[in-house]
Amino acid sequence: MDNERLKKQIDFLKEIDKIKQIFRQTLLIDGTRHENDAEHSWHLAMMAMVLSEYAKEKVDVSHVIKMVLVHDIVEIDAGDTFVYDEKGYEDKSEREKKAAERIFNILPKDQADEIRALWDEFEERKTPDAKFASALDRMQPIIHNYYTKGHSWREHGVKSHQVLERNKIVSEIAPELWKFINDILEDSINKGYIER
Amino acid sequence: MDNERLKKQIDFLKEIDKIKQIFRQTLLIDGTRHENDAEHSWHLAMMAMVLSEYAKEKVDVSHVIKMVLVHDIVEIDAGDTFVYDEKGYEDKSEREKKAAERIFNILPKDQADEIRALWDEFEERKTPDAKFASALDRMQPIIHNYYTKGHSWREHGVKSHQVLERNKIVSEIAPELWKFINDILEDSINKGYIER
Ligand SMILES: [Ca+2]
Repeated sequence: MDNERLKKQIDFLKEIDKIKQIFRQTLLIDGTRHENDAEHSWHLAMMAMVLSEYAKEKVDVSHVIKMVLVHDIVEIDAGDTFVYDEKGYEDKSEREKKAAERIFNILPKDQADEIRALWDEFEERKTPDAKFASALDRMQPIIHNYYTKGHSWREHGVKSHQVLERNKIVSEIAPELWKFINDILEDSINKGYIER
Repeated sequence: MDNERLKKQIDFLKEIDKIKQIFRQTLLIDGTRHENDAEHSWHLAMMAMVLSEYAKEKVDVSHVIKMVLVHDIVEIDAGDTFVYDEKGYEDKSEREKKAAERIFNILPKDQADEIRALWDEFEERKTPDAKFASALDRMQPIIHNYYTKGHSWREHGVKSHQVLERNKIVSEIAPELWKFINDILEDSINKGYIER
């Protein structure tokens, strides 16, 4: 290819295909198999389109969408860290920064910087958009767990109080979605999907 | 749930999880399995972020992203129609319209209309954004075929002249991407991935 810039862009688009093989703890809602990061990211983008009215601070939906689309690309190198895995969280940030360095820089500099900025913003969780993106990222596996009768909660012995503790940031970011999470957790306890 | 609106939104988000089980003819770039529509849609959104500079008419990247995210949801009911399947194309539009009617209307009316408008725009391929979204949708499986040594071309006996004929709209929409497609097709012929 004689176009050096396009070559870099295609190389990046080829590299990120690997995200389709990074599997998460959550099952698909039909319960047949684990979900991967590409599917998860697509689903979060759809959630951003549909649920943005619940963000307490006004968000820019398009910007939230871009953030959730790129937020897990680093897991191509760093792997998925289960949200209740305290040991895995110790060096998560370091592993993911190294991954960001390598993968985003396959792109031409201006685009590498653009995607890195989106990822940094998501990771820092300071802007309203990043907070809302993060709330969706917390909420989606809870919904999947609910519809798969608590599959990964039961598999890892996660308790309801841990889910609430680990995801309480949602209460500030989107109170109505936090209420929804509490409702389905209560229902999950009643149905025996999770222990209190 | 006492919030009727949120209930509809969650029902929709649950329903569209099924797109993760709609498999396409294309393999992942690592060649291990077929790609599904959620992964494909995510990949197109990333392509929109990275390749929009090649659109001949200026595009609104965020709008293109939203279109590609929703463009295949109808396949939950209508299934994936292989781009070289002439028979499947006969009633494709009718099957997909029925699917759009059912699936989008799980949402509250205002959001159903919003997503339907995105899908209609994509299908009509008249606006610069829709044309560019469509060009990406054509280009992505060609890239996957190239990197998987022409897997679905060989499987279905598709020839290079058919690929060019079927996707020639890209030449008007994004000339440099069309040149890239021609280059990798030429290379595919040389490498024996496809016949001329
Ligand atoms: Ca993650």
